[in-house]
Parts: sequence; C-alpha cells; structure tokens
Amino acid sequence: MANIIDPFGESEVSDYSHLFKEFGLSPLKPLLAKIKNPSFTMKRGILFAHRDFDKFLAAAKAGKKVAVMSGIKPTGKFHLGSKMTAEDIIYFQKEFKAKVFYCIADLEAYFDNGVSLEDSRATAVDNVADLLALGLDEKKAYIYKQSNELDVLRLAQLFAKKVTTNMMKAIYGQKDIGLYNAALIQAGDITLPQTEKFGGPKQVLVPVGVDQDPHMRLVRDLTKRLDRKLFLPASTYHKFFRNLEGESKMSKRKPLAMLTMSDSKSELKAKIVNALTGGRDTAEEQRKLGGQPDKCVIFELLAYHFQPDNKKLAGRRSRCESGKMLCGQCKEEVLEIIGDRLKVHQAKKAKLLKKAKKIVENA
Amino acid sequence: MANIIDPFGESEVSDYSHLFKEFGLSPLKPLLAKIKNPSFTMKRGILFAHRDFDKFLAAAKAGKKVAVMSGIKPTGKFHLGSKMTAEDIIYFQKEFKAKVFYCIADLEAYFDNGVSLEDSRATAVDNVADLLALGLDEKKAYIYKQSNELDVLRLAQLFAKKVTTNMMKAIYGQKDIGLYNAALIQAGDITLPQTEKFGGPKQVLVPVGVDQDPHMRLVRDLTKRLDRKLFLPASTYHKFFRNLEGESKMSKRKPLAMLTMSDSKSELKAKIVNALTGGRDTAEEQRKLGGQPDKCVIFELLAYHFQPDNKKLAGRRSRCESGKMLCGQCKEEVLEIIGDRLKVHQAKKAKLLKKAKKIVENA
Repeated sequence: MANIIDPFGESEVSDYSHLFKEFGLSPLKPLLAKIKNPSFTMKRGILFAHRDFDKFLAAAKAGKKVAVMSGIKPTGKFHLGSKMTAEDIIYFQKEFKAKVFYCIADLEAYFDNGVSLEDSRATAVDNVADLLALGLDEKKAYIYKQSNELDVLRLAQLFAKKVTTNMMKAIYGQKDIGLYNAALIQAGDITLPQTEKFGGPKQVLVPVGVDQDPHMRLVRDLTKRLDRKLFLPASTYHKFFRNLEGESKMSKRKPLAMLTMSDSKSELKAKIVNALTGGRDTAEEQRKLGGQPDKCVIFELLAYHFQPDNKKLAGRRSRCESGKMLCGQCKEEVLEIIGDRLKVHQAKKAKLLKKAKKIVENA
Repeated sequence: MANIIDPFGESEVSDYSHLFKEFGLSPLKPLLAKIKNPSFTMKRGILFAHRDFDKFLAAAKAGKKVAVMSGIKPTGKFHLGSKMTAEDIIYFQKEFKAKVFYCIADLEAYFDNGVSLEDSRATAVDNVADLLALGLDEKKAYIYKQSNELDVLRLAQLFAKKVTTNMMKAIYGQKDIGLYNAALIQAGDITLPQTEKFGGPKQVLVPVGVDQDPHMRLVRDLTKRLDRKLFLPASTYHKFFRNLEGESKMSKRKPLAMLTMSDSKSELKAKIVNALTGGRDTAEEQRKLGGQPDKCVIFELLAYHFQPDNKKLAGRRSRCESGKMLCGQCKEEVLEIIGDRLKVHQAKKAKLLKKAKKIVENA
C-alpha cells in the first residue's frame, strides 16, 4: 500500500481509513439516509467519502442554486474512469437539479500530453458525444473549453499569486511551470460556477477519484484566500478500481489494460479474455475451492460499472464462490453483458456526434 | 558599472558597448539616415539600440500593416520613464502609421505590487489620461486590460509549456510562479498584435528601456517556438536616465527622487532644489572652473525629456561650463521650463479624464 496520494501518477490506495484520519475526509455512509435516491455507487460504498457534501445537500434541499462540476482531458477515448465521474455528474444533475459545468481541459492536455489545442478538438467531440449518450442534459449544462474561458484563465492567474513554488512542489512534486499552471487552471474551473457570470457564490460539488484530494485541498485553500464570499467547493470521492491486469488505477497510459466506451466487441473480448481473475491454478481446484471474486477484475468491472442490480451481482458471486461457474464461462457471460451495454451506448452516441461537434465548436 | 541586466531590479548600465557584443543588440545610428523624421531621442542617441528595427522599418515603408506595443503597470503616477516610452509609441503611431497596442498591466500590478484588479482601475484611468494628453490618438489604438484579454491569457499559458523553471530562474532569478507568469503574460501582450483577431502575423515594435532586453530575448525565443508563422517582435532601446539623486534608473520605488507628470509646482520645486547637479564645492570655484553638465541630473532632465531644441540645450551647456551661470540660477530657469510644460500637460489631461475613464471601463 502506498500512502502518498499522487494526482499526476498512478498510486494505489488500498487502505482508505487513513484518509478520514489524516486528511479530514468524511465518510459518506452517515449521509445516505438523507439522500432520496442514492446512486448504486453510493449504496455500494464505491462513492465512499466527501468534503462538505452535507452542506451541498442542505443547500439543494433548501432550493438554493447549486452546481456540479467536472471535466475531461481530451486525449483519448472515454474510459471507465471518465464514465464513472460522468455518471456522478449526470446523477447530480437529475437528482439535485444541479447546474452542470463541464470543462474540456484542452490546456491540461497541452501541458500534460503536449497535444495542441487544435488537435484535441476532435477528441473532445468524441468525448462529449459519450457524455451525451450517458444521459447528460446539455440544456442544463455549461460545456466549455479551458483555453476559451476568460474567467477561468483570469482566476488561474489570481490563484498563482497565492501559491509559492514550494507549496506546489510539496503537492505535485518538482514540475515545470506549465504543470503547476495546469493545477491552477483546474482551480479556476472549479471556481467558475461561483463567478458573477453565473450568478455568484453558490455550493459547487466536484465528484472525483480519491487520488484527486490533494487538488481539492489546494483549491479549497486558494478559494478561502481569494475571496471570503465564495463557498468552499464540496467534493465526493470514489474508490480506485484496478486496471484489467489488476494493477493500480485504470489509466490512459496503459490502453490495453483498460476498457473504453468505444471498444468494439472484438477489442472487448481480447481485453476480457486476458483480464486478471480470482481463479485457481486448475479447473479441478476451482471446482473444489471456488473462485475469489474479490480478487477478480471481471467481478470488479460489474460491481463498479456494469451491474447496478444487487441481486444479479450477488448471484454471480455465489456461483463463483461455490465453484459451479468457472472463469471461462463467467467471462463469456460478462462479455455479453458489457458488450450489449457498449453496443447500446455506441448506437446512441453515433446519433449524437453532430450535436457534440456543435457543442465543442461553440465551447 | 553593473553588467547584469535585471528587468525586475534597478541595476545601472553605464557602459552600453557590451550590449552590442554580448547580447546582439544593434546600434540605431546606421539606420538614422533611413528614417524620415527621427525623434529627438533618436538624434541624441538616447534611443540608441534595436533588434530588427530595420525589418520593421522596411515593412512600414512597404506599406505593410505594422504595430507598436507598450503598456503601463497601473501602480502610480505617470513618471518620466512612462513618458519616454509613451512618446516613443506616439511617435511611431504618427510617423509610421503603426497601430498602437497599449496594455494596462493590471495582472502585473497584482503580482508585482499586490494591487487588486479593482484597485488598479483608478490609477489606470489617471495613466491613460496622461497618455492621451501626451498625444496618443486613441482611435488608432487598442487599449486593453491584461486581465480581460482572453488571447493574452491563453498565449501566456501556451508559452508556459515552452519554459522550464530553470530557464525562468536564469533570467529572472528565483521567484514564485506568479512573477514568472507575469513575464509570460507580457510575452502574450507582445504577441497579441499578431493574433487572428488583429489580422494575423505582422511586424511588431516594442520600445523599451535597455534593462528590458532579457524580456525581449525570452519573448523572441518563445515566439519562434510557438509558431513559425509569427514575426519575431522588434525592439528599440533607450538608455537609462538617473533619478534626481543621480542614482541608478528612475523608479517608482523612490517617489521623491523622480518626477511625475502630475507633480504640482511646489512638488516640482522641492525635487529640483534637492536634485544632484554638477556644481562645484563653492560658488567661487564654480565661477572659475565652470559647472559639469554631464554629471548634472538637471541637465539630463532637459536632454532626455524637456528640451528637444538642440540650440537651447547647447546654450545652457556653455553658460554652465563657462561658469557664468551657477546652479541656483539654472535650477530657477529649469523649474520654469518644466513647470510650464507640466502645467500645459495637466490642463490638457484634466479635460481628458472622462474619456480615459470610459476607455478603461471598456478595456
């Protein structure tokens, strides 16, 4: 277990309890009862922690205007990490009437991956089409390009005055100015919903992976120091999920070890066939001892992403643990489940590409 | 003699010849014959060096669109350094039909002096009124606030990717991110005239003090690496002039040792009375040996700023050197000359404050 949280890297956090103690995250569980329709990731403890989500909740319940913000770095296909965050924001859009702010992080793609602003547009169109296909209501969303949003770039500069090189080094390690600026631009993105243009100070929720908490701490600190009238942004945290090799978090840096929403059936099959399972050394042994779903990436795929139905998930667990179902058979079934889901998604998405293009052009 | 050029500090460069050899500045003198109406600072060798000014000259002569850019950090009254640069840009606006880009460097004021964007506005209005009173034709100028110019902020980020912390440290010393960003924003300002919004690539001239050359070298390097289609910005350099104590360059950091265009007659008098001259220890000695105008700040004030008439300047020199005129009498006369000039300027300016306010509001 690594206990450093590294937003630019791929560290593994398998023990989450220290996050509550050391970093002051709050567990989500005690709030569950107050949420009318919790998402399945909330109920399963995947979305497990928060900062100030109780305040966001109270503001939304009181009928105040609230916002939820996220974004995507347009450097590749929509993978499962993007999907999880996207589904979070769509959930908050529907259930909490939160206005969505969705950032196309083209400057981050430029700093982090060297992709020019022009070259990232086509990818952004593809990503936004995924977002729409997942169910985002674009009429209640503000989708924008970082490089084109004056307030974001101005805020990034206002924040730059509030940091020292040593502060940034402590959070992000020794990096060049561009990467530090990328973090400050993100802080601008998170603050955008509270600008005058959007009606001023309000509760803003940022659903992120738990590795992003150092960002959130920085942004909250900067927010406080910029303007006391601003609300500190709230955040929810989902747990890591592993890549298909069972390692670290899923990442664009290892494309074959992650699923994307654009995978064809044959790509999907190749990935699933090679994915790590909780199977035993021999079929005989597995029939005797049963499989180990908690070690299995395939089971995790269902639990985190593709099987919201608790009964069905429990059924598969018991078939696995009893040794009745071996990995080959399970993989075939899961290939069908995920394959069908992707097929439906891709068909929806194909029809939305034109709309996505228009959105990105005007963003 | 200090031979480090420090754009953030107040170093003294009394020997300029090494600038030609070491840094590749070119002397302006050989170009003088090609300039139809050279300014008095050109003729006197105050505006003494350049980079690529020959190219700017050729483009302007060929009837191509050219631009001249400068700016002011809105943190105080318009002093003689601001005046000299302003007169340069007004000269290029008139003589070369150059479109003027004039930047209100509110973000630089924020980084460098901790002045908020809101608080710098009133100062900006005052400064812009000075600029208009000096003769800027605002109809042929684009006056803007740094914090409000999307292209400038975007360019600053694009440039940020091209620098390393070590590069910035080598030029500006160990500073925090904000001050490095201020330099990158300035690079954005200098590049703005070449953006699509303003008709694309063109020759841009930046008249600066010679201490600003490290900036210019950085901007030229960044320009090259950003986009080969852009022209490298050209620059002209004026020599330092001393403060009223005869030290280093005139600076806002020592307000009583510099003149501003807003000085009242009594402020002016106090400053002139206390200014360093080239006088001798006793009146008797001075009558015998004569004064030393080349050591005298008062004489420099006339030569650099307030006496464009060569004959009158030569007359004063000879009265001083002959010992006929002592410092007291000279100071009285100069007080009249500068006092009259400021009075005329301040009267013009008073009528232009309303217009300046409107310009800054819309900038």
